[in-house]
Order: sequence, then C-alpha cells, then structure tokens
Amino acid sequence: MKKLLFAFPLMVVGFFAQAQTVPVYLDEAKPMEQRIEDALARMTLEEKVRVVHAQSKFSSAGVPRLGFPDFWTDDGPHGVRPDVLWDEWEQAGQTNDSCVAFPALTCLAASWNPAMSLIYGESLGEEALYRGKDMILGPGVNIYRTPLNGRNFEYMGEDPYLASRMVVPYITGLQSKGVSACVKHYALNNDEEYRHQVNVIVDDRALHEIYLPAFKAAVEEAGSWAIMGAYNLYKDQHNCHNQWLLNDILKRDWKFDGVVVSDWGGTHDTDQAVKNGLDMEFGSWTNGLTMGASNAYDNYYLANPYLKGIKEGKYTIKELDDKVRRILRLYYRTTMNRQRPVGFLCSDLHYAAAKKIAEEGIVLLQNKNNVLPIDLQNVRRILVVGENAIKPMTVGGGSSSLKVQKEISPLEGLQARLAGTNIVVDYQRGYVGDKTSEYNGVKLKVNLDEERTEEQLIADAVNAAEDADYVVIFGGLNKSDYQDCEGHDRKEYKLPYNQDKLITALAETNKNVVYVNISGNAVAMPWTDKVPAIVQGWFIGSEAGGAIASVLVGDVNPSGKLPFTWPVSLQDVGAHKLNTYPGTWREGNQIIDEEYKESIYVGYRWADKEKIKPTFAFGHGLSYTTFAYGRAVVDKKVMGADETLTVTVPVTNTGNREGAEIVQLYISDLKSSLPRPVKELKGFSKVKLTPGETKEVVFTIGKDALSFYDDARHEWVAEPGKFEVIVAASAADMKSKVSFELK
Amino acid sequence: MKKLLFAFPLMVVGFFAQAQTVPVYLDEAKPMEQRIEDALARMTLEEKVRVVHAQSKFSSAGVPRLGFPDFWTDDGPHGVRPDVLWDEWEQAGQTNDSCVAFPALTCLAASWNPAMSLIYGESLGEEALYRGKDMILGPGVNIYRTPLNGRNFEYMGEDPYLASRMVVPYITGLQSKGVSACVKHYALNNDEEYRHQVNVIVDDRALHEIYLPAFKAAVEEAGSWAIMGAYNLYKDQHNCHNQWLLNDILKRDWKFDGVVVSDWGGTHDTDQAVKNGLDMEFGSWTNGLTMGASNAYDNYYLANPYLKGIKEGKYTIKELDDKVRRILRLYYRTTMNRQRPVGFLCSDLHYAAAKKIAEEGIVLLQNKNNVLPIDLQNVRRILVVGENAIKPMTVGGGSSSLKVQKEISPLEGLQARLAGTNIVVDYQRGYVGDKTSEYNGVKLKVNLDEERTEEQLIADAVNAAEDADYVVIFGGLNKSDYQDCEGHDRKEYKLPYNQDKLITALAETNKNVVYVNISGNAVAMPWTDKVPAIVQGWFIGSEAGGAIASVLVGDVNPSGKLPFTWPVSLQDVGAHKLNTYPGTWREGNQIIDEEYKESIYVGYRWADKEKIKPTFAFGHGLSYTTFAYGRAVVDKKVMGADETLTVTVPVTNTGNREGAEIVQLYISDLKSSLPRPVKELKGFSKVKLTPGETKEVVFTIGKDALSFYDDARHEWVAEPGKFEVIVAASAADMKSKVSFELK
Repeated sequence: MKKLLFAFPLMVVGFFAQAQTVPVYLDEAKPMEQRIEDALARMTLEEKVRVVHAQSKFSSAGVPRLGFPDFWTDDGPHGVRPDVLWDEWEQAGQTNDSCVAFPALTCLAASWNPAMSLIYGESLGEEALYRGKDMILGPGVNIYRTPLNGRNFEYMGEDPYLASRMVVPYITGLQSKGVSACVKHYALNNDEEYRHQVNVIVDDRALHEIYLPAFKAAVEEAGSWAIMGAYNLYKDQHNCHNQWLLNDILKRDWKFDGVVVSDWGGTHDTDQAVKNGLDMEFGSWTNGLTMGASNAYDNYYLANPYLKGIKEGKYTIKELDDKVRRILRLYYRTTMNRQRPVGFLCSDLHYAAAKKIAEEGIVLLQNKNNVLPIDLQNVRRILVVGENAIKPMTVGGGSSSLKVQKEISPLEGLQARLAGTNIVVDYQRGYVGDKTSEYNGVKLKVNLDEERTEEQLIADAVNAAEDADYVVIFGGLNKSDYQDCEGHDRKEYKLPYNQDKLITALAETNKNVVYVNISGNAVAMPWTDKVPAIVQGWFIGSEAGGAIASVLVGDVNPSGKLPFTWPVSLQDVGAHKLNTYPGTWREGNQIIDEEYKESIYVGYRWADKEKIKPTFAFGHGLSYTTFAYGRAVVDKKVMGADETLTVTVPVTNTGNREGAEIVQLYISDLKSSLPRPVKELKGFSKVKLTPGETKEVVFTIGKDALSFYDDARHEWVAEPGKFEVIVAASAADMKSKVSFELK
Repeated sequence: MKKLLFAFPLMVVGFFAQAQTVPVYLDEAKPMEQRIEDALARMTLEEKVRVVHAQSKFSSAGVPRLGFPDFWTDDGPHGVRPDVLWDEWEQAGQTNDSCVAFPALTCLAASWNPAMSLIYGESLGEEALYRGKDMILGPGVNIYRTPLNGRNFEYMGEDPYLASRMVVPYITGLQSKGVSACVKHYALNNDEEYRHQVNVIVDDRALHEIYLPAFKAAVEEAGSWAIMGAYNLYKDQHNCHNQWLLNDILKRDWKFDGVVVSDWGGTHDTDQAVKNGLDMEFGSWTNGLTMGASNAYDNYYLANPYLKGIKEGKYTIKELDDKVRRILRLYYRTTMNRQRPVGFLCSDLHYAAAKKIAEEGIVLLQNKNNVLPIDLQNVRRILVVGENAIKPMTVGGGSSSLKVQKEISPLEGLQARLAGTNIVVDYQRGYVGDKTSEYNGVKLKVNLDEERTEEQLIADAVNAAEDADYVVIFGGLNKSDYQDCEGHDRKEYKLPYNQDKLITALAETNKNVVYVNISGNAVAMPWTDKVPAIVQGWFIGSEAGGAIASVLVGDVNPSGKLPFTWPVSLQDVGAHKLNTYPGTWREGNQIIDEEYKESIYVGYRWADKEKIKPTFAFGHGLSYTTFAYGRAVVDKKVMGADETLTVTVPVTNTGNREGAEIVQLYISDLKSSLPRPVKELKGFSKVKLTPGETKEVVFTIGKDALSFYDDARHEWVAEPGKFEVIVAASAADMKSKVSFELK
C-alpha cells in the first residue's frame, strides 16, 4: 500500500501533545485549591522538600520540572534591597538595583492616614515587581515598648490599634501587585539586643491586647500571604517554630492559610521546624560551604535532615504536604499569577508617593512664637548645622539598608527650595558622628575635618549662628550600630555625639533655632524650653530633603502626629521603671528571660496609669493652623451587645491656612472585672480643613472597641457596664468626653 | 457649610489616577507599532541611549521608570548557559542554573528532520523562559567551509539549503515561547583563528548563494527578532557595524525589523556603530572598571560617547530612534508580551526531546559485515575504550559551555542499557587527552594514571580487547582549545592524542571493533578499511550515553546523515587546496585578508567539481535496514517561470526492520551563462518505512530552486533551459535522474 507524503512531514507532530493538554495545575480556569492538589500530586518527595527551604540568601527553589519559578524574597519594608551574591551578603555589584527609598514605617504611622499606607504598599509592590521580587520582608509591626529598641524605626509605634489600621492597607496595596507581604517579626521581638537569646515572658492579656493585634489584623483583615517568625523565644521555644504562636494562635485560631517564613537564621531544630508551624526556612548557617556545584543549603534543618527523617518514618508526608500546599498557594498568588500588573522602578509616581507620605508624617512637635514656618520674606541668611543635614540615611540600619537612585539630603533640599531667592544658606557640621565618608559610592558632601575638636566645631557653629536669621539644626540618630539599627539596641536615651551641648549653645546664641530630629525613636531633649521649634523628621528616604524643606518654609502644613509616647527619661517607661529590660541571664548564658512585667501598660497606657507627663504625648503633633473641637455626641446612651455606637464631633479650622487634624477617639472602661488602661485608642480620622471650615467627624465603634482579653476564659470579652468615649487631639489633650452603657 | 465624613477618608483617592488610565504603550489592545511610538515619545534622551548598550555581561537596561524590564540574553544555542557575575565572566555560583544540554547543532542538522528543529527550539525556549532569559544567542548557521573551524560543531553544516530548512523551525519554536532568537554570526565568520582580524574577501555569488541563505531564511521565513554581527570584517568594516551587510542587505533588502546585536566585544567604533546598522552593543571592554556604583558600561561606544555625539550635533535623534524602535519592538515580542507561556527547566519532555533529536542525528557511517547492532544474545563481554567514553562534553568549547543537571556518558549509557543482562562491560582509557579531572564539580570517573605511558595505555587496551566480543572505542575531539572549541581553530585534521595508533592496534586485535567518533567536525580516518563499524556520535548533551547505547544495541535504528562532506584530507577541501586559509597578514599585523578563492565551490560542490571521492559524502548515512529507490518522475517536462514542478519517487524498505531514509533532491543546471555547481541540494524528506513498505516521496520545487545569484545584475536569476532533477541517498549516491526544461 502506498501513501503520499509531502516534503518535511512533521514526524513528531504531537511530540508535545502531553504539554498541549493543559494540566489542571496550569489551568487558570480551575479553582486555586484544585490546582494546588493537582500540583502536589505531581511532585516528588525530593521536590517537596526542596521548596520548604532556601536555595540562596534570598530565594528558594521552585519546581523547575513543572514550571513553578524560583521564589524571590527581599528586604525590605521601605524600599527594595539591592541584590547580594548567591550565597554571600556582599552586594552583587549590579547597576539595576537602585530603588526609591520610602519613609521608614514610623513616619508612615505618624501620618495616621491609611491612604498613605495604601499608596506605600502599591508603590513598593511595583518596585518589587520590577526587580523580580515575589515577597517583601515586611512590614514590621512590633510594638514600641522601649525607645532603646534599635529597630523601632522600622515599626509602627506603640499602639496596637493604630498599627493595625496602618498595616492593613500597606499589605493590601503591596499584594494588589501580586507581591507577597511577610509581616514581621511574629512575635514579641521588641528589642534587638540578645534577640537570639531573649525568652519573653508575657501574660496572655498583654500578648493578645498589645503585641498580637497588628499581626492579627494583617492576617485576618489584609490576608497577608506570609508572616515571619521572630528570632526570640516564647515559652522557651524559638518563635520560628513555636507551637503556641504558630500552630495554636496563627494557624488554628486565626485560620492563616499562608506561609510561615523563618527570620534569617531563626531556625534551630529540625523536629520543631517540622512540627511547630514553620513552612519555609531561610538564612540558616550553611556550615561554611559556599559557592559551587554542591548545594550548601542541603544542610538546612528542613532540607536533607528533614528528607532523612521522612524516609526513616520519623515525619509524615501529611506534615510536609501541609507546608507544600501553603507554598503552592503562595506561588499561585505571586509567581504563578499571570495577571500580575506591570512593575515600575523609580517611577515619577513612586517619588511623588514617597514625598507625599513624608509630608504627612513629619511631626511639628513644638513651635513657640510661631518660629515656623520660616518667613522667607524677612530672611536673608539661614544657617544649617549638623551632620544629619548631609548624611545619607538610606544606607545603614541593618537589613533595611538600601541603594537608592537618589536621596536628597536636608541641606540639599533646603538649598534647592531657596534657589532663586536672595536667601543665603550656610552650613556648619557642628558635630561628627559618622567617620565613614562614603556609602555605596555616595560620599558625604562635606568632608570630615579630622583636625577640629568637638569644642571647635561647636564654636564654629555658634560663631556662624550669631548673625543668622534662622539656625536649623539637623541632629538625632544616624543608623549606625547601637543607634537606630538592627542587631543592637541603643545604649542610652540621650542624643549621641554631645549634640545636647551643641543644640544648647546654638539656642543660647540665636532666638530662631529650629531643631529637626532625624530618628525613628524618641531621644532625650533636656533643652525643650530653650529651643522654640522642634520637628520630628524621621528617616524619610529619597525625598527627605525636599519634604523637610517644604514643611520648614510652609509649602506644606505639617499634619503628622506621634505614633509613640516621647518620654522625658527612661524612668518614665514601664519596661525600664520595672527594670525588666534587657532581662536576666539564665545559668550558662544561653537564654535571657525578659519578663514584660508592665503587662498591658505600654506607652501612653503606662503614662496614664502612672500619671506621667511625657515630653510629647502619644498622638501629639502641631499644625501651622489651629483647630477647635466641638462637643462629642453619641447616637445612643445604651448600646446593645450587637449594636454599633456612632460618635460625632465637629472640628473647625480656626487659623488662617488650610491644614489637617488627626482626631482621636479613646475608650475608657469605667468599671471592669479586670484592670484596664485609663483609655485606649479605638478610632482616628485625619480631617483636612480650609480656614474657617467645620467638619463633623464620625466614628462608628462596635463591641470590639470595648473588649479586653480575658486570660481565664481565653477569649475577648466586652463586659456590660459604663464606658466613656474620649475625643482628643492627643493622649494628653482630651477635648470632649461622653459616656454610654453597654448592655 | 458642614460635611459629613467617615473615619479614614481616603484623602488621596486618585493619587494613582494617572496610572489607572492605561497609557497607550501599556495597552495590550493597541497595535504594537502604535505602542512603540507612544513609548518612544515618553523616553528621555538618556533613557534611549541607555537601552542601546549592555549594563552587564549579558543584560541591557530596560526603562524602569516606564515599566520596561531589563533585557536578558544568554548563550547558548544548545542549552541555557549558567549565570555569571554581573560584570565578571566567573560563574555566579548559583544552584538554580543547571539545564538540559541538547545535541549541538551539527547533530540536529544531521537529523535532516525539521520537526526536530521545532521541538529543539520549543524546548530550549521553555528552558530559557524558566531561567528568565529573553534572548538565546543562537542558533549559529555559519557555513562549514573547513573542518579546522573550531566552532563548526555549533553550526548546521556546509549546505545553505539544509541549514535554511533546519534553522527556520528552530527559530519558530524558540520564538513561540516569547524568547528571541539571535541568529549568528552574521556573516562570513567561518573560522575562529584570528576572528577579530580576518577581513573576508568573497565574491558576490558565493556570498549570496553559500554564506547568506540561512540568515536570509532566518530573517524572512522565521522572522528572527534579532541577529548577531560577527567579529570579522568584510570590505574592511567590522561586521557588527557594516554598511553592506547590515544596512544594505539585512535592513534594506531583507526588510529586517529586529535588532542587530554585536557579538561580545565586536564593536570598535562609535561612528560606525551609530551609522552602520548596530542596535545593541554587548561585551565591549569596560576599561578595567568593574563592580560598584559607577557604571563601567557608560564607557561603551554606544553609551556616553554616543550621548556626547548627539548633544554635540554629530549624530541625529533619527538614527537613535530607529535603534530604540527596534529594541522596543523586541521588548513587546518578549519581556512585554504578557501572553508568554510558562517556562520549564529540566522537564521530562525536554529530556525526551534531547534524546529523540540525538537518536535522529547519530550517523552510522560504516557497518561492514553488519557488525552493528551489537547482538546481545551472543555477547558476553564488551570492552569500552577511550577517554571520550567518560569525559563530560557539555563543559568546554567556549561560550556554549553548560552546567547540566545531568549528562550520561557513553560508558554510563551502555552500562545502564546492559544492566540486568549477563554481559560484562569493561573499560580501558586507551589514551589521555584531557589532564583536567573535574568540570564544574563533575569529576572524570576514571582518574588519570600519571605513571602510565601512551604505549602502556594502548597495550592495556589491546590486552583487554583480545577476548572481548566487541570493542567499542569512543574517541574524537573533546572541546579543549584548538579542537572543537571557540576562539581557535584546530591545528591539524588528524585525531589528537595519537588515537589513530590506538584504533589501529585494537582493529588488528579484534574483528568486532566499533569506533564512535565524538566531534562536531570531520577528522582524518586513515584506518577506515580496518575498522568495520564507524558511528558519528557528535556532541549530544545530557542524554548522550543513552542515545548512543540505543543505536549501538539496535533499540534505535540510526537515521541521521552527514550535513557536511567528510574529506580524506585537507587537500580535498577547496579552502585548503587553494591555500586561502587562514589568509595573509597585511603590514602591521592588524588585518588578515582571507580570500574565499573557491567561491561557491564549498563542500560537495567542490568535491563534485574536482571529482574527489571523500571518506564519506555529504548526505551519507546508513541504517540497519536497506532502502530501494524507484524511478523518479516529474509532473511536467516543461515548466513555466511561475509554475512549480512536482517530483515523485517511490522508496521501499527492503530490509527486515523499520527505519527512516533521508531522500535527497539535487538540481543540476545543464547549461548556464555563469558557471554552476554540478548539483545543488534543493529538497529532502525523511521517510519512515516499515519492512516492505513503499512510500512515494513528493517534492515540489519552484524557480527558486533553479536560480543563481547574478553578480552583474545583483539579483537571483532562473535562466530558461535544461535542468536535471537528481534523487539521491547522498551526494555520492545518486538513485534516479530526470530532466526538464524551464521556459
């Protein structure tokens, strides 16, 4: 029998026929959970074990054979960290990994504007996406318990409610770009010193009322796709594999369906890692094995030791499959989500977002005699003093250190704003804190004069200040070790480098002194009565100089308020007053027990209870205009258990320029079976008002706002009885009270 | 006037409003050319200049601000090269960049099966996609002009028609995955020695009839999105910026709308690079500047020097915009193509493809007494001899060197195939060629015995051969320098390491000697009458051992044929006979002129003209079955200029097992105004036949198949007159002729 053939018969047509029938796991029309099960069924044991641990400093292997890409994580919370080598911390020397630095999270929290969180998350997500990162290792929501914590600048302050409201839209925005959040550090990682050894002892009320709510909101409300276990211990178990925090609270109670990621090097034991809730192990020590064909990561606790344990019957496939399902879910939400939007890096909108967030977060702490804004019509010469006016602040501080496309220093920002005017801007370094003169090729603009003593530097500044119309001092911390920096805590509360002496000397020389504090932490300010204007300038990132200049000259009316209490001294902080920090070493110096004896009384809750007047209260922040509060009214005097209560308060701009006021709502439980704080923040609203304008601000609260955690019943309880609503401009500035009863 | 507000008014709703209106360049519903113009209008001059040159060893910057990703290229044609450091050739030490090595392209060409090219391209495209590569630097289609060319193994043989038919589906398959081909090296890069200095002098007929057709097919038929300029010169201009090749032929005559990429380090002059058709500059020397914040790539010819020239008015934006349009087009075809399929790495199908292609490409050159296939029923002991039985061949050879997930050596392949039988497989190294014992962590399985001399190694092998049923020798070349390796040519035609002596000694000891030649090139075989079976085993990649074993034991019936002529000696090659290789140095030793004096008479065209009998002819390859050809018939005796001619020939499998025959069609122009080759390949078909089965093979040819390039008129001409169709099993084995006339 003869057949007719044409030239080039495709003899293997259909060779890829298998591939042409789209398998369920690749079929976008199928439900995600069905795709997960299909993928799981196709994976070998080795492939499953391969995805539960890192393959490099910041990535884990996908399933190449099945088309699941490698998974790339990256620091950090306020900008996408530059790439490092495969298995070295050293930067990879790329030229495509410069980013926009957004304000560090204390500044975001100080905006008290969830819309800022949303654009923050969206912008950061786009930057991550462009850079090929599938997960951002953030945001951080550890509670501001002591101003010594070196990492406070990365977090959202002392109040669980404020942190919760601010973290949710950040995650929503980030994840809307198909990039996973990894909310951190879960949990109780509230200081840096001895972070690998600290075993936190905390009562259940403080745990649930203070330290967990922001994580819970991140999981339950924002649906965070991942969470990072903390370095420290709780109940003698490391938090990266902690039965109580991970299995019981996170996965059982909160129904978390995402991935628990270890902090880098936070895994210590295969057995616990397998059983106590860890899903992906990162950053463990690779036993000195580095680059080359042999994979040092095979030594990870969840790598070959895990595989061996499974083969020996010590661990079950069920445990492994639970981890892999979560990881596959993460893939479908990120790398396998073919609808991910387009990424952008250093786009015009990202810079605009960074500047806008900064401008909303900068806090005008003090402004005697309306020294600010600087009156440009009547000024001829401004003296800028202080190393922080010129020091790059996007480099340093630990894992959140960045390589930026640009960073406008405060001095540059002011110079740029005043260019074209006749105003002269002079500069004096004033003090020397940082002997490094270059950061990733970014040189300090003014070189260190090794020959000049501290006395001489101060004398130079004072001399130059004498005939200046304004003296603007940029001081504070600087992200060096033992300041606002990961890995250690600050050693003392006061400003370093003898800045107090410099500031005092300048304040005694010139009446128009403005002190801009660059930090993510409170610092001692023993000279507040001498310095008329104080601005909290945070770590603002790429647009630092422009944003600060806008506030100083009044282009922008400051509208931020403090997300933490600014104590006079450490003795005004519960953790220190009760001598609970940094804890007590156990014999052998392997574990240091840190008991949170102050319990729920953190921040303003402590100050309220102890009747302490801080330097600046939680929620404090001034404006270039003034606001008047009317009387708060409630829509009912008696509230049913399932009802909501509406609180209305009129707020009026009584000054002569547009401004925004952050109106705060606190709840006071007047009678309770358990001790309760004097008041707790349960609502806030940032209201923009033109001169003379009044708006009625409306808050709606449910029984959640009235509840406490009953540590006997292990649940949240709203006890019937009398409550008080307090409308306030800060925790120390109550404007109106109204009481009601919960039935 | 009062307004009612709720908590958390999104004060910046619409902050991203600009982004919500999809701009034209991001609108997938808009035509590509319109999107290109929109993007072009948004780019700054600096952004435009930034995309026309590299940012690292293998990538170029995208436009981060606008969301165009970085663009990643990678070697190579037969597997995706492991990642190197940002600006160093050193491997980056990753563990996620092991790939499948597919057979090198001579093997693919030897399959004479375009369907193999298609699955090759598809599979490689999926591997590239998984690895994040947007362009594969291949395939290579430089013509096999001399067996000394160190890079022949990467190309598709000596015949422009065969190379054209095989390159088109490769590119189609690759680009179907959204990964760009970069067909190379355009053009006339036919030897490696002095490749940066060689100025090729070639007549227009040879240029158009021999050296350009495969590139033309790649551009016009496959629509290759990119092409790589060659290192060498033509008409005294480097081919990466060559007015004739790039502007006149490629872009004007062939209407190429893609991107011309320089070979790495092939750019030498800003002015020529701007004006003579180069679009993207890669691999230029970075003047010793390496890693760090300052971008060494700013020194590239098309970087700051170009920007400076534009600012000075020396170059126009029009020239730049043409390059940028082409690059944006490339983006939309690759990185900006959101419909790109899923990538896979080391998938089961890729291994199956690699093995299938190998099995179709292996050529049975000689099989006296039907020594092959090895009769497993009557064999007790097989001796394997030769270093190439154990040496990894996926490492080495230059830029095509790979890091593979696995590579089965010939010895391992045979051992695996014979596992479970009673057949003993012994091994003797026989010769030592490669003193390196480790490749990327892959160790040679048998260590080098430093103490044994060449004589002793041969004696050991001969001794072991005496009572073996079969002796299978794996010899040939080994991808070391001066063999099949980029950068240099072979120094001589004969086998290295005194293999001839070893082979001869073994053939004199045992009658069942099989020699498997591992190479991408012909080698001298002065012992062909002594060795009954000779197999051309190529560089096959990951599945080498399994594929070769399948052929040796007869699981697979070999069906490949030679894509080049296998000469007895170099004196049988035009380039050498006419003493045109490697050329003549000009004074100053900067340029070496290599005149292609043999003109169009390359390969079998030379052998035909000079009536030379090669060791093995172009198109030669045996089977374990036999085929009989019937008489060819044409559908018309006189063919009109716009008509096609159909040629039909019955082919019968006259043996006793299934096999595939590559039926070849040559055209002979019996009378022409210009000299023409005796015959030229113009059709082929690989036909699979069961024992006794006959198929009619049909070829359809048009006037293209009858044309020559008229160098006076500068166009292709089909002259009326007598032609002959020759149906053949090889260039030396004509089966049937039939004449016809073109009107």
